[in-house]
Amino acid sequence: MLLRLGLGLWLVSAGPGIHADEGMWLFNDPPKKLLKQRYGFDVTDAWMEHVQKSSVRFNSGGSGEVVSEDGLIMSNHHVGADALQKLSDKDHDYLKNGFHARTLAEEKQAKDLELNILMSIEDVTARVNAAVKPGLSDEAAFKARRAVIAGIEKESQDKTGLRSDVVTLYQGGLYHLYRFKRYTDVRLVFAPEQQIAFYGGDPDNFEYPRFDLDISFFRAYENGKPAKFQHYLKWGRGTAENDLVFVSGHPGRTSRLLTMDELVYVRDYRLPKTLGRLHRLEVLLTAYSGRSQENARRAKDELFGVQNSRKANQGRIEGLLDPAVMATKAANEKKLRDAVAASAEFEQARDAWDRIAAAQKVIADNARVFNLIEAGTAFNSDLFGIARTLLRAAEERPKPNGERLREFSDSGRESLELQLFSDKPIYNDLEELQLADSLTYLAEELGVTNSLAQQILAGKSPRDRAAQLINGTKVHDVAFRKRLYEGGAAAVTAARDPMIELARVVDGEARALRKIMETQGEAKQQAHAKIAKPRFALEGTRNYPDATFTLRLAYGTVKGYKEGGKSIPAHTTFAGLYERAAEQQYRPPFDLPKIWLDRKRRLDLKTPFNFVSTADIIGGNSGSPVIDRGGELVGIIFDGNIQSLVLDFIYTDEVARAVSVDTRGILEALRKVYDAKNVVTELNIGKRAQ
Amino acid sequence: MLLRLGLGLWLVSAGPGIHADEGMWLFNDPPKKLLKQRYGFDVTDAWMEHVQKSSVRFNSGGSGEVVSEDGLIMSNHHVGADALQKLSDKDHDYLKNGFHARTLAEEKQAKDLELNILMSIEDVTARVNAAVKPGLSDEAAFKARRAVIAGIEKESQDKTGLRSDVVTLYQGGLYHLYRFKRYTDVRLVFAPEQQIAFYGGDPDNFEYPRFDLDISFFRAYENGKPAKFQHYLKWGRGTAENDLVFVSGHPGRTSRLLTMDELVYVRDYRLPKTLGRLHRLEVLLTAYSGRSQENARRAKDELFGVQNSRKANQGRIEGLLDPAVMATKAANEKKLRDAVAASAEFEQARDAWDRIAAAQKVIADNARVFNLIEAGTAFNSDLFGIARTLLRAAEERPKPNGERLREFSDSGRESLELQLFSDKPIYNDLEELQLADSLTYLAEELGVTNSLAQQILAGKSPRDRAAQLINGTKVHDVAFRKRLYEGGAAAVTAARDPMIELARVVDGEARALRKIMETQGEAKQQAHAKIAKPRFALEGTRNYPDATFTLRLAYGTVKGYKEGGKSIPAHTTFAGLYERAAEQQYRPPFDLPKIWLDRKRRLDLKTPFNFVSTADIIGGNSGSPVIDRGGELVGIIFDGNIQSLVLDFIYTDEVARAVSVDTRGILEALRKVYDAKNVVTELNIGKRAQ
Repeated sequence: MLLRLGLGLWLVSAGPGIHADEGMWLFNDPPKKLLKQRYGFDVTDAWMEHVQKSSVRFNSGGSGEVVSEDGLIMSNHHVGADALQKLSDKDHDYLKNGFHARTLAEEKQAKDLELNILMSIEDVTARVNAAVKPGLSDEAAFKARRAVIAGIEKESQDKTGLRSDVVTLYQGGLYHLYRFKRYTDVRLVFAPEQQIAFYGGDPDNFEYPRFDLDISFFRAYENGKPAKFQHYLKWGRGTAENDLVFVSGHPGRTSRLLTMDELVYVRDYRLPKTLGRLHRLEVLLTAYSGRSQENARRAKDELFGVQNSRKANQGRIEGLLDPAVMATKAANEKKLRDAVAASAEFEQARDAWDRIAAAQKVIADNARVFNLIEAGTAFNSDLFGIARTLLRAAEERPKPNGERLREFSDSGRESLELQLFSDKPIYNDLEELQLADSLTYLAEELGVTNSLAQQILAGKSPRDRAAQLINGTKVHDVAFRKRLYEGGAAAVTAARDPMIELARVVDGEARALRKIMETQGEAKQQAHAKIAKPRFALEGTRNYPDATFTLRLAYGTVKGYKEGGKSIPAHTTFAGLYERAAEQQYRPPFDLPKIWLDRKRRLDLKTPFNFVSTADIIGGNSGSPVIDRGGELVGIIFDGNIQSLVLDFIYTDEVARAVSVDTRGILEALRKVYDAKNVVTELNIGKRAQ
Repeated sequence: MLLRLGLGLWLVSAGPGIHADEGMWLFNDPPKKLLKQRYGFDVTDAWMEHVQKSSVRFNSGGSGEVVSEDGLIMSNHHVGADALQKLSDKDHDYLKNGFHARTLAEEKQAKDLELNILMSIEDVTARVNAAVKPGLSDEAAFKARRAVIAGIEKESQDKTGLRSDVVTLYQGGLYHLYRFKRYTDVRLVFAPEQQIAFYGGDPDNFEYPRFDLDISFFRAYENGKPAKFQHYLKWGRGTAENDLVFVSGHPGRTSRLLTMDELVYVRDYRLPKTLGRLHRLEVLLTAYSGRSQENARRAKDELFGVQNSRKANQGRIEGLLDPAVMATKAANEKKLRDAVAASAEFEQARDAWDRIAAAQKVIADNARVFNLIEAGTAFNSDLFGIARTLLRAAEERPKPNGERLREFSDSGRESLELQLFSDKPIYNDLEELQLADSLTYLAEELGVTNSLAQQILAGKSPRDRAAQLINGTKVHDVAFRKRLYEGGAAAVTAARDPMIELARVVDGEARALRKIMETQGEAKQQAHAKIAKPRFALEGTRNYPDATFTLRLAYGTVKGYKEGGKSIPAHTTFAGLYERAAEQQYRPPFDLPKIWLDRKRRLDLKTPFNFVSTADIIGGNSGSPVIDRGGELVGIIFDGNIQSLVLDFIYTDEVARAVSVDTRGILEALRKVYDAKNVVTELNIGKRAQ
């Protein structure tokens, strides 16, 4: 699943410049010429606005689309899973068993789910760069940049009432101000069983052919009523092989513009470390889940996320360990560097690669401890996260807006509080297990005799220390959190909460490391900005920035591919689903929900279920609408095939494919399997039936 | 399960010297006085000989016992699992479904399974030490020691025809010559379904109460007929709470005599590295198994082994990260060092700890590459192992016996050839997956640009290189192996087999690293020998050596314990099994084989099924007989509880327990569930019915 995608195996792209259906394009700079040339398609401003304002970002890490004027929003099941997990308890497992509200009254309010719709984009590069005077040290430059960005965001929010984020593009080449309408009253309308949403489980994840009903429906509310939307996507009539399609969503992160030094760091340090932790967590959560059904329920969404990341990152490291991939990247970089060296015009950029290498070296030297105590791999606990937020909020909030840690800026306050005061369930047994394991990881990484490790462990074994912290803290209690948040530093100190005090023990060093990382990030950003200029000059508008979890437009064609000499058609059908189950003898995760067995006869088995296209997508695109020329919805992205994992890093359309659920399959299932008449009607007429 | 046990969590033992039911005693030095004092039991030589010659060692890593004069041998299911796996194919899954031969003709010959029975022990310490002249360098001392040991073994084998191994005890304090009768024609008689043998799977592994029928029966043959045994254990009448019991088996390894420097290395380096690899392998094999039922079958025994090791090593590291455990070990060491410092008599031992520390430092510096290319973590492939054995056999066999790598000595030749020419199934898809993963691990550990890594990968990605090697090698073919083995170096070189050539590429460095490790091992051994003297003097016969996978006698009482304020009785029953299944709603691994559901009514549900005792055991003890005062068989060891994982390291009988299957439960199941009349009769009368 795309939630957290990565790099991969197969490589065909050569040289820089735009290749085939490559590109995650900015909405204020769509590839009009390319689309006209390649597909004879005219991108109008009206078309762009309609698609933009029908596209939704989920703060739980995915995308979605508005599908009725009454605020009905579709996304993937695995994007909605976070909300489903938080709404479930011992007696109601909506994640596993699904959910269906037949009336507004039955719709269930999600916990701490925030949806954003992009309303406008403004280029603020000049203003940001003007504030960062030449000759400043990297540290001073970072501070100046932070301050001007916080100021722009605050000013915009005050003026428009919209969530305002300054977004860094081209690794620092451009700064754009994105304004979003926020929805925080979001209610669950419909979700199928996870068994069919994630049919084939981990074994079939990132594979194709595929048979997943990976969808869920939510509704955005305002003032206690369904929100009204001017723009929404009409339910389309589906696709045929070779159709042009568009994907409008929020790719999370790509690494296509990284320099070789940065890529080597990713290959040699970041990915192996990440995979080591994921393996460890997968084993921990699997063992925990094996002990009882209730354990399995509690850990379900997190375990899914870990397995999904593991498979994606496995693909990424395999890509970077392929000498052919690295050779292509190196050749591309050399070409650009040679051009820079050859022209006086680009003189300023000549030292940029070395500066990035130098900064990357400092980052590498500090990454281990930074990851442990600031990124938090030593404290794998929701309660620790809450405790630290309380501690830091007390210190940060009295500061001027522009001097705070980014997550405490005025423009982010509402989103922060939504998370901090969420009453999502927290399970002490699971918290204790994860904290004990991550404290063990800390002891292994630092050495148990390291003085910081000793301060953290306080003379106890990791297991005993975790038990003491989880049982001793009061931050479970939302009222307690509110009291401390409002009471500020004095209240936080007076509480003497053991988890908050643990956060305090590491806070000095954690902040110092964060400062180093931010300063080096600033240095890299300035160097990348210098590289961006010759790249723009040489490649012109044939370029687009790396993904940043902001709205992008991709395009491609519906198209099968060959694997191991076998042709894989673009579409699968319900018939294929039942064949797959039979071939695997219905053993989990290839078993089917009973209702799917009972109602098989009702279904038209030839109905298209999933399909693939060449659109350029990556993790974060999950739930993105797939749209036809007419702007109608024909599918919803939910995965890439294994061969697409390389897209993090370099585009290819030979065998890399985006995988979608077909709108025809969705409708057939809603009608014939789930009798979800209210949803079907709303999709068909674009509003709630009266 | 005990196959590969480790260190653990709970600690109560204080100070050196023998505590309660502590001890894995040598058969030529049993704790007669202790047993007399504590239990009023007289250990006679006849009793010892009877138990010794009824005890069996499995080369697949466990213990067993002779239970009829016609060579019927019982062990655990998880010890027999290796043989069951190798006998299975796509259409016959004996590991999963069990096996029952009702006649001799139906018994199935196991592949490369060797059983050993200890016939005699001889102290050769003086002879070994005499050959290692004072003043030799560590390297020369190692060579001298290797030569004298190989000579003693060869001489003994030639004289007696018995397998002859010189065993290092007390980390070098003593050398004993063990002579074993070997059985290599071993046939499978009976095994239950893995579902009931390993009931509760990974979640219940190392837990108690427990409900596992962890048994299998084999028969030793000689000259194509059942071998005749003078000594075998009579089927006993079971145990009651507080009964004295003995365990006679082969504990694999303990670390109780390690110095603090060695323990710190285990804690800070060996265990974290080992666990990292186990997590990685567990995820790899689980994902592979998920893809089809046949995959699951192929990987089953290996995945079990990995999960089992992971849980055991997790316990070990938790033990070593417990400051109380380390404080106890440190205090014990200090006491001994103080005694040594205080007495002129022990002057020679004074620098022993520092010498061990120095050797340990060199070992630590070389461990990473050694583990990769000599211990083979970079080449996780049976085919690689075979290829390397062929390469090295060609180089080693022409050398004088005393100068060869240990595994090629004359006395080990038959055992080596049994393995090398085994026609056990090897699955190319699994081989390729594991080799690609381990080559990736190599690239991560060394860095892909490291020159050795580049030689190994030969310009390919780990995945492509693995495919090339597995598809290119011919060592699958047993006839090819024999041809190369007989043909020597010329034939091996002429074959130009890619896997053998890979082994050759690393062989120079691998051998050099092995030499360093062996030399440092020698240095440590000499230093430990010096420590052994004051320890013997101070602690007298109240001591026993660390486990070495040689026969040991342990003793203890059948005894429940308290956990979390709850009393856990010593015995479980069949009734408890059915209750556990119901409580877990029969979901795997808590489901029951159909025959156990169908025949529930036949069973006397009050029959004791599993029980615990305080006997001092560790991994390798799996399958050990539990014997009563009369020398009758009352149970078979199959596990330790979680609290016993600490036993690797320090003894405790507060809550640490050995877990056994009760002979009464075994008989009831064989009779009522399996209708295994032939086995039941043989157990009851001590020979085959005519």
